[in-house]
Amino acid sequence: MAVRLTQPRSDKLLPIAGIKLGVTEAHIKKPGRKDLLVIILDASTTLAAIFTKNKFCAAPVTVARNHLSCDLPIRALVINTGNANAGTGISGVAHAEQTCEALAGLLSCATQQILPFSTGVIMEPLPVEKIIQGLPGCLNDLDPNNWLTAATAIMTTDTVAKAVSKQINLNGVVVNITGIAKGSGMIHPNMATMLGFIATDAPVSQGLLPEILQRAARVSFNAITVDGDTSTNDACVLLATGKAAIPEIKTAEGEAFNLLQEAISDVATLLAQAIVRDGEGATKFISVIVEGGKSHDECQTVAYAIAHSPLVKTAFFASDPNLGRILAAIGNAPLHDLDVQNIEVYLGEVLVAEKGGRALDYDEKAALTVMQEEDIDIRVLLNRGAVSATFWTCDLSYDYVKINAEYRS
Amino acid sequence: MAVRLTQPRSDKLLPIAGIKLGVTEAHIKKPGRKDLLVIILDASTTLAAIFTKNKFCAAPVTVARNHLSCDLPIRALVINTGNANAGTGISGVAHAEQTCEALAGLLSCATQQILPFSTGVIMEPLPVEKIIQGLPGCLNDLDPNNWLTAATAIMTTDTVAKAVSKQINLNGVVVNITGIAKGSGMIHPNMATMLGFIATDAPVSQGLLPEILQRAARVSFNAITVDGDTSTNDACVLLATGKAAIPEIKTAEGEAFNLLQEAISDVATLLAQAIVRDGEGATKFISVIVEGGKSHDECQTVAYAIAHSPLVKTAFFASDPNLGRILAAIGNAPLHDLDVQNIEVYLGEVLVAEKGGRALDYDEKAALTVMQEEDIDIRVLLNRGAVSATFWTCDLSYDYVKINAEYRS
Repeated sequence: MAVRLTQPRSDKLLPIAGIKLGVTEAHIKKPGRKDLLVIILDASTTLAAIFTKNKFCAAPVTVARNHLSCDLPIRALVINTGNANAGTGISGVAHAEQTCEALAGLLSCATQQILPFSTGVIMEPLPVEKIIQGLPGCLNDLDPNNWLTAATAIMTTDTVAKAVSKQINLNGVVVNITGIAKGSGMIHPNMATMLGFIATDAPVSQGLLPEILQRAARVSFNAITVDGDTSTNDACVLLATGKAAIPEIKTAEGEAFNLLQEAISDVATLLAQAIVRDGEGATKFISVIVEGGKSHDECQTVAYAIAHSPLVKTAFFASDPNLGRILAAIGNAPLHDLDVQNIEVYLGEVLVAEKGGRALDYDEKAALTVMQEEDIDIRVLLNRGAVSATFWTCDLSYDYVKINAEYRS
Repeated sequence: MAVRLTQPRSDKLLPIAGIKLGVTEAHIKKPGRKDLLVIILDASTTLAAIFTKNKFCAAPVTVARNHLSCDLPIRALVINTGNANAGTGISGVAHAEQTCEALAGLLSCATQQILPFSTGVIMEPLPVEKIIQGLPGCLNDLDPNNWLTAATAIMTTDTVAKAVSKQINLNGVVVNITGIAKGSGMIHPNMATMLGFIATDAPVSQGLLPEILQRAARVSFNAITVDGDTSTNDACVLLATGKAAIPEIKTAEGEAFNLLQEAISDVATLLAQAIVRDGEGATKFISVIVEGGKSHDECQTVAYAIAHSPLVKTAFFASDPNLGRILAAIGNAPLHDLDVQNIEVYLGEVLVAEKGGRALDYDEKAALTVMQEEDIDIRVLLNRGAVSATFWTCDLSYDYVKINAEYRS
């Protein structure tokens, strides 16, 4: 029941020179379901990654961090769904290592050149034998055009695969960017497991790539998951294969950098929005836009307080303009010097609140019309600065409870 | 559908000498519903109050704070349900003032000697005329034995009235404590409007009373509402009429103080637990007990992270021991130096997790049995100190969504 989100078309997804993807059915999930993905990277590829800040981080996160710290070129990513390998202690780490070791054996590289990722149920032992047995199937399936099957293979409670491509022109050379993601619903930002893999054929220096990823994540995945303080398994990876015939981009300035950054941020934002649109039980897609703040952080803090409120979310599910709940949520945002008298709140184009209360000419009928739409904007004007930020969320429905109550059945 | 919570019996509620209560039907809510309460205090009464920290605090909170700052003895409290007078700007403040002015007129005292309280829907104008017209009805109804009807009159989505009495013996003199509260559900602690009024006939100095209230709130209402960072209207009031024939209690030491503090904390805790048991849609009452911490704050932070997680709450609703969600919630608690390897998690008496993962002899069948109970303990041992804290919450059910989606219909 995704909100205005359709299945991506495979022929619209651009291959990225230097990257091949292969999937197989490793029998972690129910029969007939591809549940294992291997992404093979050309030796020229640079890589940046962001991981969850959860202290109970999953074993694959621990192992991936360790492998990255070895500073060897990464040759492959291996991703399974159906089991998160989280809350699995020392044996979980051993299982993630064994997975990497097996793939490294098949690829004749070092174990530290493989990064593992997992998503699915927590605190169950990883079926590592099934995964190892599935690896040759993935390698037999390798193809640069497998982005859609890859996006499909990493889904958990997702109802639609999430994949986006974008093409830009840098000094006459065509550069491709393609990304896939999975998100098990973003009703509560710090709970959903989010995995994202974005690749470009542009050449980007290893020094600059983490900054591009941080900038992109800030306006996309971190605008739905706040500070990366997220699930046990969250990870986002940016790959640059360097196959496009342009000079390497090394610094955060110049037209090539700007265009590439914008395109990568766009791909990340579309993927992040797709996760919200496919949020567990979602029937509405809500953009919370906070303007007129002193800093991006304070705008995002206010936006998050609104997007995070179950009372706001249930009101949107019911299409009930019980909009005082938005004011209450703003009042709970941890900003010490907020003067509520100066704040204006709009629902779509309808002025809802000003001067600390309901707007004088507030039109509940007009607000009701806005609330019945599937895509809704809440706009908050803080009127104390020139910065803005946007946060995306969805409503809270019966189906959210249903999906999460019955997740393992 | 309150969890093991029964309607209090009026004959078990002790009157407090020096206090009378009167209710009436002011027609704010639907016909046949008492919705206005006046509490009249004897001149000897000392008073302490705690209010919401929400920056969009309701008009009655603003007015009550202003009146308290005048340092005149408070003569009466006036509480309406059905309308929160929140998000109502300057006119809301005027309405709350008019309510106090009208009651002050009837009682021949200063407006500043009245404190107003409201609960109900946000951002609708307060029907102040109806309230003013209802005040004489409340005064005609005044009686020291009206605690149960008072508790009933302040309910919103509560399904059971909340009232508790306790009697203690201080040096041979009987001292009574009676409290009432309303809470519209505690699924999300910083959203629910909580009102609490606790009274004792013990004589307590004006200087000491706020400390007694703070200590009581810390282990009760703040163990369900974290830091008082709560709804627009939350308020808790402690009254001491001084009618019991014992020397005034002036300092936070000695047997009389200790016994009184303990009794008041007990009454507050029972009221706070009753709010959770009557939580919107609740089918389970969950105590999250965190032990072995370095400080009360850090224990409460971890307890809150668990109690606050919608994934944990839906798992409990489904009686599904998907207990990795508890680990994920602990990992999200904002403690920088938490070593998850040292943490043990128990469900009832069942050891669920240790050494960063599932316990070796974890018995899912035993865990399932615990999860099917109505009262459930989650116990977390941090193993790094000697302090503990408890936080109470309930599960997240379909009915939570239903109640909040249809609140205004």
